[in-house]
Amino acid sequence: MAIEAIEKLTTQLAKLPGVGRKTASRFAYHLLAAEEDEAEALANAILEARQLVHHCPRCGMYTDGELCEFCADPRRSDELLCVVSDPKDVLAMEKTHAYMGRYHVLMGALSPMDGIGPADLSIDELLRRLQAGQVREVILATDSDVKGDVTASYLAKLIKPLNVKVTRIARGIPIGGNLEYTDEVTLTRALEGRQVL
Amino acid sequence: MAIEAIEKLTTQLAKLPGVGRKTASRFAYHLLAAEEDEAEALANAILEARQLVHHCPRCGMYTDGELCEFCADPRRSDELLCVVSDPKDVLAMEKTHAYMGRYHVLMGALSPMDGIGPADLSIDELLRRLQAGQVREVILATDSDVKGDVTASYLAKLIKPLNVKVTRIARGIPIGGNLEYTDEVTLTRALEGRQVL
Repeated sequence: MAIEAIEKLTTQLAKLPGVGRKTASRFAYHLLAAEEDEAEALANAILEARQLVHHCPRCGMYTDGELCEFCADPRRSDELLCVVSDPKDVLAMEKTHAYMGRYHVLMGALSPMDGIGPADLSIDELLRRLQAGQVREVILATDSDVKGDVTASYLAKLIKPLNVKVTRIARGIPIGGNLEYTDEVTLTRALEGRQVL
Repeated sequence: MAIEAIEKLTTQLAKLPGVGRKTASRFAYHLLAAEEDEAEALANAILEARQLVHHCPRCGMYTDGELCEFCADPRRSDELLCVVSDPKDVLAMEKTHAYMGRYHVLMGALSPMDGIGPADLSIDELLRRLQAGQVREVILATDSDVKGDVTASYLAKLIKPLNVKVTRIARGIPIGGNLEYTDEVTLTRALEGRQVL
């Protein structure tokens, strides 16, 4: 069984995150069996998104306008700057409804193993924003894994000399979390980060 | 957060089978962050597959040629005809390497609840093929669920008067299956279908 166009489509679909060859093939056959305009609408949506969406020149978030909605919003505080790795992380932060400052998207995390160094992230842009002098506190909200931690400590060292307060989002047991099933590293962090009641 | 182009892309991706809004959003952000040509290649692969791939006029399987490879293959027996619901089922049968007859794809299964009746399936085409007289045995390989069973009995009733042998693929405990964990319906079928050793 080797219809080239189906093979090609399957190969492309298998590049989506978490999609193996089998799921990709299921997607491909779905698209073949779907209404003509459903398949076309997906293809066009991909092309359109790539055409219309670009990075905000200030923070790196996706936008289809000049500035992203977070940089453009006059109600947000310029004194707080939350640094994240990825545009998706901005959405995660926004879901909390607990943050009303600005964002800076690094576009990745330091990872010497993958050849990703400081020059590959938007760190220069971050420092330039801080030198403008409005930001009072930088909240480092990179992931709580090795890459995220390395990136956070690297940034902390760079930012502290600028006389800007640097904080890191708390690590600890998640809400609903059970001590018994919490891994020891998380529990150690939770202990270290204990707060006075 | 409502960048329209991203929303649209997410909506389209969420139509893929088994893909919810969250996974679709992950796919969308992956496509935005991917190399320009990866996203374009996927869009083009979808359009190309829809353009080049069509149903085999004889059996209903997908093909990019005049006849599908199974209808065109002179080494396959014209005396055996395997009836399946879906083009994907042909691939599943082929993986067994145990079948060297022809196929007929019904393009669905009877489902009065969904308003799918005999006229919506390629049953007329099937009967016309049988009337040509070459087929000695029809193997009904529809799914082993209600729709598949209903479709199989409906077809059996239509085909028997044509003096063609009609068989149904065996239902029973799967290989590696454990009696203890086999549901009672499957076990009943396995018992009914017991064979002399």
